[in-house]
Amino acid sequence: MPSADDTRVGRATRRQFLFGGATAGIGVAAGAAGGILAVQALGAEQPAPTAPPHGEQRVPFFGAHQAGIATDAQAHALFLGLDLRADVDRADLGRLMRLLTDDAARLTQGRPALADTEPELAVSPARLTVTFGFGPALVARAGGPAPAWLAPLPAFSIDRLQPAFSDGDLLVQIAADDPLTVAHAARMLLKDARRFTTVRWSQPGFRRAHGTERPGTTMRNLFGQVDGTSNPQPGTADFDRVVWSDEGWLTGGTSAVIRRIRMDLDSWDKLDRDGREASVGRTLDTGAPLTGTSEHDEPDLEAKNRLGFPVIPVFAHLRRSRSDNPHERIFRRAYNYDAAPAGDAVSDSGLLFVSFQADVARQFTPLQRRLDELDLLNQWTTPIGSAVFAIPPGCAEHGFIGDTLLG
Amino acid sequence: MPSADDTRVGRATRRQFLFGGATAGIGVAAGAAGGILAVQALGAEQPAPTAPPHGEQRVPFFGAHQAGIATDAQAHALFLGLDLRADVDRADLGRLMRLLTDDAARLTQGRPALADTEPELAVSPARLTVTFGFGPALVARAGGPAPAWLAPLPAFSIDRLQPAFSDGDLLVQIAADDPLTVAHAARMLLKDARRFTTVRWSQPGFRRAHGTERPGTTMRNLFGQVDGTSNPQPGTADFDRVVWSDEGWLTGGTSAVIRRIRMDLDSWDKLDRDGREASVGRTLDTGAPLTGTSEHDEPDLEAKNRLGFPVIPVFAHLRRSRSDNPHERIFRRAYNYDAAPAGDAVSDSGLLFVSFQADVARQFTPLQRRLDELDLLNQWTTPIGSAVFAIPPGCAEHGFIGDTLLG
Ligand code: HEM
Ligand code: HEM
Repeated sequence: MPSADDTRVGRATRRQFLFGGATAGIGVAAGAAGGILAVQALGAEQPAPTAPPHGEQRVPFFGAHQAGIATDAQAHALFLGLDLRADVDRADLGRLMRLLTDDAARLTQGRPALADTEPELAVSPARLTVTFGFGPALVARAGGPAPAWLAPLPAFSIDRLQPAFSDGDLLVQIAADDPLTVAHAARMLLKDARRFTTVRWSQPGFRRAHGTERPGTTMRNLFGQVDGTSNPQPGTADFDRVVWSDEGWLTGGTSAVIRRIRMDLDSWDKLDRDGREASVGRTLDTGAPLTGTSEHDEPDLEAKNRLGFPVIPVFAHLRRSRSDNPHERIFRRAYNYDAAPAGDAVSDSGLLFVSFQADVARQFTPLQRRLDELDLLNQWTTPIGSAVFAIPPGCAEHGFIGDTLLG
Repeated sequence: MPSADDTRVGRATRRQFLFGGATAGIGVAAGAAGGILAVQALGAEQPAPTAPPHGEQRVPFFGAHQAGIATDAQAHALFLGLDLRADVDRADLGRLMRLLTDDAARLTQGRPALADTEPELAVSPARLTVTFGFGPALVARAGGPAPAWLAPLPAFSIDRLQPAFSDGDLLVQIAADDPLTVAHAARMLLKDARRFTTVRWSQPGFRRAHGTERPGTTMRNLFGQVDGTSNPQPGTADFDRVVWSDEGWLTGGTSAVIRRIRMDLDSWDKLDRDGREASVGRTLDTGAPLTGTSEHDEPDLEAKNRLGFPVIPVFAHLRRSRSDNPHERIFRRAYNYDAAPAGDAVSDSGLLFVSFQADVARQFTPLQRRLDELDLLNQWTTPIGSAVFAIPPGCAEHGFIGDTLLG
């Protein structure tokens, strides 16, 4: 199971940095951090020992779940929303997914795709994962059955959705720690998909580069906020419950909600620091809740200040995005985007909000509805794209992604 | 001098990997490679020693030359072409460059810009450099004198230039090994520039991520070619001669030519491997010349095959981009681009060709003219943007970039 495997590494590394205990399993991540001392200890005259560069790290492709969900988020991701050509039928869908599965299985392991025209670009997977999702029209063409939630989200008052960033029949999420790896994989996959699909949208996103910070550091978004603190942890029963579906052909799969949310940095920058921290309920420097001192402290939603007001305000994103209902939880795996500014603007930035959950209607929609009703962050954020996909389970070595529906 | 300093590190690392000799000066780069062995040697029970993550690496800002030229190319770069607002006069230009210099001096050293609204995004410079260039209109508004070559290039028959990617009054090249660092720096600089300028174009580019490959590996472009082999080496007298100007206020500066060159991957992919290697005169796997066996072998332009034809064809890019005239040499520092495909296409890819040379007219233009006349690569490449800038020298701690013209 790819997710379990690569998750174990991620968790170990995180723990190792939090608590200072190194284990044999930590691999390259800790190696990089330990490097300087080590080389000095070996003496200036010794040749440096060589370990495989980070680009050679691989995330297993085959398994019960698709990779790229429980996988520690890579630095770069490209989200492709494809539309099926009019004449593509169920048999074609099987062909398409067999082709794409074969490409992904090879590329993620650092092997060129079949008939790869730039095989030299394939040798550094850098933790490449390729994750496929099916939109409503694809499942319909496959002859269903579709999960009840597989449809565009209900309309929200905050939405200003653009078709150019919304919906789509087939999702391809390509993520790796190297941008050239992502570009090459995207090209190979799209070349094989082009007989069957056209590109509806193509959205690149980024986080900190691998190696910029200590492993396990939570990412920051372009508002400067620590983003992703309170999230189910891959490798736990909690994560499995939140994320994996047990519905028919989707068993071992999940759903993805992808929303392009523009962040208005200009108006955000006019807000003072207290206002910004109040809007989420966490501090900007460490990401600690306003009632705590470090990032992973449990927020105290009851705490009052001297005036008797809640320390974490009623309109705070943190409070609003929590529900008393234990079913209303999601796993977030977002990326930043920063596109070329148009006209007189100096930035066109935001968040590619990505969440995985077993059931969109039960878990995601109520949360988004709460946030639509009240969330101070809405002041500076605008959803401009939205798409929902069913993410089929992983597959075995001779199967293909989607075979529980198309096989 | 920033360039000399960071160059020394770059060269040492490269040499160390080529010849296996580690030195105390190699720092984090070699450390990363040496990491796994080292941690294992320390034993699984020991806490891992911690070294600063790569994000903390800094390239000096002040010095005789601007950084970002001799600096070992970072993984990410954003090229901004700005236009001056109509009412900006010479005094404003001084103000603008003082502001931007101050921002760049801080941000490159991991310190927030003055009034930085997201100071937390500034702490990981990841070898950030910011390099400024002046277009013809800026130098004119400053009251000149302009170098004779500071003008759009002459028209070439291969050109299909789009104004949206061409020309501009002020160049800001922002480069770092981390995409979030680049995004934050761009925002801070553009916020300070907005009173004086508008964004004409904004072009992001990438190379392999830091750590994907061993340091010193030459980059590959999206044709899969090793690109950048034959290039003056920073830190050598040859480099200094090719790059640095000794003309008036530009002494210690240089020029930049930035050309957006679309690479038609679809037609390239139809060409067989022999054809592709012949088009450049180098092999795709190692980048060795067709007359040699390893990348840095000197090409033998006289060698003939059994039929009596040159092994490196007369139309090969390698042959055409060399001149017998020792003055016609440039320093290339290109980036890949991969934009969202439009319509039925599956990619919109190419090269942000960037070259630095003391004199555009003497060094660059004759080369480009030769390539315009004959170069098989033209078959698959199309210049769609072009801009020329004068890159002022670096500045001292209390000066500012451009002070030799504006001070
Ligand atoms: C640009 C838009 C958004 C920004 C900038 C943003 C930012 C943040 C930040 C800074 C946190 C606190 C740190 C953390 O736990 O990750 C947070 C938490 C959270 N956000 Fe968002 N968010 C955005 C949109 C959304 C959306 C659309 C949803 C779901 C509909 C959502 C759901 C959550 C949840 C569930 C939490 C964790 C709450 C908790 O359990 O403490 N966010 N967000
Ligand atoms: C997309 C367009 C281009 C591609 C794909 C490309 C690719 C290459 C490749 C693969 C090499 C051989 C490896 C190396 O030495 O770097 C090379 C060399 C070179 N190219 Fe280009 N190039 C392009 C455009 C240009 C342009 C516009 C110029 C200048 C006008 C140029 C000047 C050179 C020079 C001077 C060399 C080194 C020649 C030598 O001394 O061996 N190239 N290029």
